[in-house]
Amino acid sequence: MVSIKDIAAHLGVATSTVSKGLNNATDISDDMKQKVIAAAVELGYTPKRKKISTGKTEYAERKVCIFIENMDYENKDQFGYDLILGFKQSATLNNWSVDIIPSSLSARTTSDYDQFMLMNQYSGAFMIGFSMHNDYSIQFSKTRIPTVLFDNYIPGNSKVGYVGTDGNEGLELAVKHLYELGHTKIAFLNGAKNSMVSVEQTAAFKNAMKKYDLYVDSHLLESGYYVPDCAKYHVPKFLDYGATAIICASDLIASGAISEVTKRGLKVPDDISIIGYDDLPLCLSLSPALTTIRQDRLSLGKSAMILLKCLIDNVPISKSILRPELIIRESTGKCKS
Amino acid sequence: MVSIKDIAAHLGVATSTVSKGLNNATDISDDMKQKVIAAAVELGYTPKRKKISTGKTEYAERKVCIFIENMDYENKDQFGYDLILGFKQSATLNNWSVDIIPSSLSARTTSDYDQFMLMNQYSGAFMIGFSMHNDYSIQFSKTRIPTVLFDNYIPGNSKVGYVGTDGNEGLELAVKHLYELGHTKIAFLNGAKNSMVSVEQTAAFKNAMKKYDLYVDSHLLESGYYVPDCAKYHVPKFLDYGATAIICASDLIASGAISEVTKRGLKVPDDISIIGYDDLPLCLSLSPALTTIRQDRLSLGKSAMILLKCLIDNVPISKSILRPELIIRESTGKCKS
Repeated sequence: MVSIKDIAAHLGVATSTVSKGLNNATDISDDMKQKVIAAAVELGYTPKRKKISTGKTEYAERKVCIFIENMDYENKDQFGYDLILGFKQSATLNNWSVDIIPSSLSARTTSDYDQFMLMNQYSGAFMIGFSMHNDYSIQFSKTRIPTVLFDNYIPGNSKVGYVGTDGNEGLELAVKHLYELGHTKIAFLNGAKNSMVSVEQTAAFKNAMKKYDLYVDSHLLESGYYVPDCAKYHVPKFLDYGATAIICASDLIASGAISEVTKRGLKVPDDISIIGYDDLPLCLSLSPALTTIRQDRLSLGKSAMILLKCLIDNVPISKSILRPELIIRESTGKCKS
Repeated sequence: MVSIKDIAAHLGVATSTVSKGLNNATDISDDMKQKVIAAAVELGYTPKRKKISTGKTEYAERKVCIFIENMDYENKDQFGYDLILGFKQSATLNNWSVDIIPSSLSARTTSDYDQFMLMNQYSGAFMIGFSMHNDYSIQFSKTRIPTVLFDNYIPGNSKVGYVGTDGNEGLELAVKHLYELGHTKIAFLNGAKNSMVSVEQTAAFKNAMKKYDLYVDSHLLESGYYVPDCAKYHVPKFLDYGATAIICASDLIASGAISEVTKRGLKVPDDISIIGYDDLPLCLSLSPALTTIRQDRLSLGKSAMILLKCLIDNVPISKSILRPELIIRESTGKCKS
């Protein structure tokens, strides 16, 4: 374990100076503070936790944070809500406190993230909604801070783990359901093209189609974005090419697909079956109610905290993957053509 | 939650009879006991835990078990030892007791496993060393008992999870290391042909070779078994076809490969580099000391218990996968041909 003394020796300064730097004291220069933090990160220093007394028991304060970006979470209809709730529930059970940081992570240098975490005495973080730009990839592939990514994977760094839902099993459940209803011309409207999860979902869709001996028509396979609006750019082509069912990479996309199909005078599911992904509360208020591949967001949040605790305890889990579930409602029916 | 009353109503008997059946009492017939257990399994009954008092605190006794088959674990040189130790460490932290059941699981009917677990009041089990015969696959795909499998995956049952080490990352570390040493003719001697993990390892080896633009010669790719002796059947052919390096699917296989190469007057690593898999204590006593892909068995055991606890708490994790690490010792060196 690296101590304050080691940092002091490395910098050739007094241990009191290091202590001031790490505790964000006001009576040292910003320049020295930066040097102390930079050396602490470089040497792999882990701050000691503050002791908290609750009357009977004394325990070390331990806190973690959630960085969230590109994702709504303020009300319970939104994807991030249960994700955060599950994480907090699991953290509270273990006496960890959780801060939410709803902003872009600055990534000016490759050690910015570690410095931020160290200065704020966070033991680890859960990253939600980030797309892995190069900046982030570099930071996360080098970080020494236990970090859990939602739907993103970083090879080679045992301090970073990934939680997500098994897309292979999810797409297979969806294709199997449609296959059993007699559909063969099945379209897949995926989310953002370059994210890791989209690449995996496309492969998973192809695998599932292959498993049921169904032909993957390249005209029936498109990438959009995780918003309803993207449906209008792709659904017309799917219809032109004879699709009788559309699997969408999110419920929001599926809601757009239902609108688009309905606008053209077709009926769901009589003329075309539609399946979503996520099982947001929205599914029940759509007309017809949406058949979807459920991601258990509460469990995803819980497993993120459980994984983060493993990483903090040096159990190097790289992937913790949840089972999806197919929730059959009214938007899928027998193929009539 | 299914109660004793529900079972009694289902069978049309008194609740006291059900209670006797579930508690393995001696004053009811074996036939009735079987009926009670069968109904309990069918209805999805979970037994209440016995209360245990430790003076200050009273808590429910909770116990889990480890079934182990085809794997040695009695002394710390063996693969199973740390796996069990890690599992027990994590269980003890959570006040769970662990029984080891070192025998074949009987599999006469598809509900045998559930009946056994229920009658012995186990909350869940960790299965080590099982090869997935059809009998087991059927039982595990239907079981309602939280169950963690080592190196085996069952689709579609949210009560069953899998722990293992990421073979993709492991084989990539090995191939990268050899590539950087100038090797291009790399052989892979895999374990038992039909196990899930072997199929994945072969795919992982091919992926890794592709990533470094290396040709996969089918003569340099064989399946054996996880014992040293299998090397003698395949290593001679590898040498005939010009291999300069051999990656083995276990340290035991690698120890056999070193013997075989040495017997033929060749030197490791001067003439041929050899890499193992697992990082058993044995690696250090081989001559030369074995470069290997490390599976962190203590962490695997810990993560198995953590995953089992998730399944018991209805967090449906299907896969919990650990990072491998390449441990470079003396059995790999620069390619000279």
